[in-house]
Amino acid sequence: MKYDLVIIGGGPAGITAGIYAARKKMKTLIVSKDFLGQAGRAAFVENWPGIKKTSGPELMTSFKEHLSGYEIDFLENELISSLSKQENVFNLITNQKKEISTKAIIVASGKNPRPLKVPGEEEFLGKGVVYCSICDGPLFANKTISVIGCGNSGFETAIEMAEKYSAKVYLLEASMKIMADEYLQEKALETGKIEIIKGALLREIKGNQFVESIKYFDSLEKQEKEIKVDGVFVEIGSVPAAEFLGDLVECNEKGEIKVDHRTCSTKTQGVFAAGDVTDIRDKQIITASAEGAKAALSAYYYLNGQN
Amino acid sequence: MKYDLVIIGGGPAGITAGIYAARKKMKTLIVSKDFLGQAGRAAFVENWPGIKKTSGPELMTSFKEHLSGYEIDFLENELISSLSKQENVFNLITNQKKEISTKAIIVASGKNPRPLKVPGEEEFLGKGVVYCSICDGPLFANKTISVIGCGNSGFETAIEMAEKYSAKVYLLEASMKIMADEYLQEKALETGKIEIIKGALLREIKGNQFVESIKYFDSLEKQEKEIKVDGVFVEIGSVPAAEFLGDLVECNEKGEIKVDHRTCSTKTQGVFAAGDVTDIRDKQIITASAEGAKAALSAYYYLNGQN
Repeated sequence: MKYDLVIIGGGPAGITAGIYAARKKMKTLIVSKDFLGQAGRAAFVENWPGIKKTSGPELMTSFKEHLSGYEIDFLENELISSLSKQENVFNLITNQKKEISTKAIIVASGKNPRPLKVPGEEEFLGKGVVYCSICDGPLFANKTISVIGCGNSGFETAIEMAEKYSAKVYLLEASMKIMADEYLQEKALETGKIEIIKGALLREIKGNQFVESIKYFDSLEKQEKEIKVDGVFVEIGSVPAAEFLGDLVECNEKGEIKVDHRTCSTKTQGVFAAGDVTDIRDKQIITASAEGAKAALSAYYYLNGQN
Repeated sequence: MKYDLVIIGGGPAGITAGIYAARKKMKTLIVSKDFLGQAGRAAFVENWPGIKKTSGPELMTSFKEHLSGYEIDFLENELISSLSKQENVFNLITNQKKEISTKAIIVASGKNPRPLKVPGEEEFLGKGVVYCSICDGPLFANKTISVIGCGNSGFETAIEMAEKYSAKVYLLEASMKIMADEYLQEKALETGKIEIIKGALLREIKGNQFVESIKYFDSLEKQEKEIKVDGVFVEIGSVPAAEFLGDLVECNEKGEIKVDHRTCSTKTQGVFAAGDVTDIRDKQIITASAEGAKAALSAYYYLNGQN
């Protein structure tokens, strides 16, 4: 399979890049393990301009429907396992051994959830330990859960669970400062079901067949504590999915791809990157989409010798 | 009136900045002559992710409705006529002599249409000379019109007019190369009503009470020509609305505000800029919106001493 452009990733950045690429009539393939991205796992989205409130899956479904109106190829449920450049052509091999060649690449592979790395996490994965609240949230009706991490996504998960499912939500934050939007903090308070515990350093997830409790060190009271919970929702951020690129790109200390923020170009000609996998400061659906559009236009200029 | 943040402009950048600012609970005012921006004057929009086809006014109405769900102040139909900085406070005076003080500013004032500067342009303004096709297009039912400028917006105007109203559309481009999206060029061909004239240098707009013809120099055949038209739609780009800022910002040779593309900051602390008024390469609704979000987050970090 030969293409002008291969887009790796099917979140907001990848799909928007696809829409722009198709409109520019580039022969384009999108390779992705899903068509959601991190956005597609958000319980609710209230800051996508023009829509007061939607869910991540709903928004991403509208993106994909939009894209499917154009001529573009899809390769779903696949990952790129190897990638090399020969002269001006990139050769890609997927994890299912499909071979693809292309003149340009947009990396929009996003991030994967960061693991807690505490005892019990792996043991109870799928048995109370949850990385995708929107996928598994409904399993916790009338249960007590804990959410680990007090950023915006931690708050959003806690609010969604408190409003729809859970009887009680403990929201644990390792530091003493809450960084989430004030607006979300107020909403969390309004639920009357969310208890925020600051300075809580998670030590262990305990249980028998399923999660039964968590142990944490209370750094304010300087003692270990244990609380009974049926679920542990992990919201401590994520790691960029850029490793498969080897030295085609340069990364910062967080593992994010360094890009020119005006054009989304990387250190390798013909390789562009967009969205959460890059070193843009603001990881938002709207910014990822815009970066996707910019990367597609850059690929177009590159293929037409205009860069 | 004292604010944390004043946003100047009500297009995609200004409104998205407003949504993000309100969610961060900054005391915010938006000053704008309208709540549309250039986007709001687009006949159709097909590249806003998630919506296959909409019109500029429809999309911008959804933006404004979204924004109005938050606590935020509006000052409509007004422009900023003077602006000064004293220590860390900015003092603004509107054209209706209202005085405003604020700690931070986001400039999202966009662009104004670029005039043709040919004889007849001013004389026939509102009498056949049109800068906003979506406002005045319906007046040209079954008429012959000319569109001046063959960029994307020129093509979009020509297609909209050919599909909905006009009997015949001449599309004039000064250069010999068409830069519009291939997709739009195909669509224009499909209408069967659009005639593209390359290398056409417009010389004069003629008529009596209303426009009756245009004269142009055909640089291919090296001679003057005249064609009968009832309307002249001006689509030759636009100029940034940044003059009122004086030396608070630095501009490039196009008059666009130079910004840090990661943060939207300008040369003056506390002044951020977003959207078409800046030197971003890709002037799109999606990029303007993202820049608005980034500028609002930058203003938030600035006001909280985190920048």
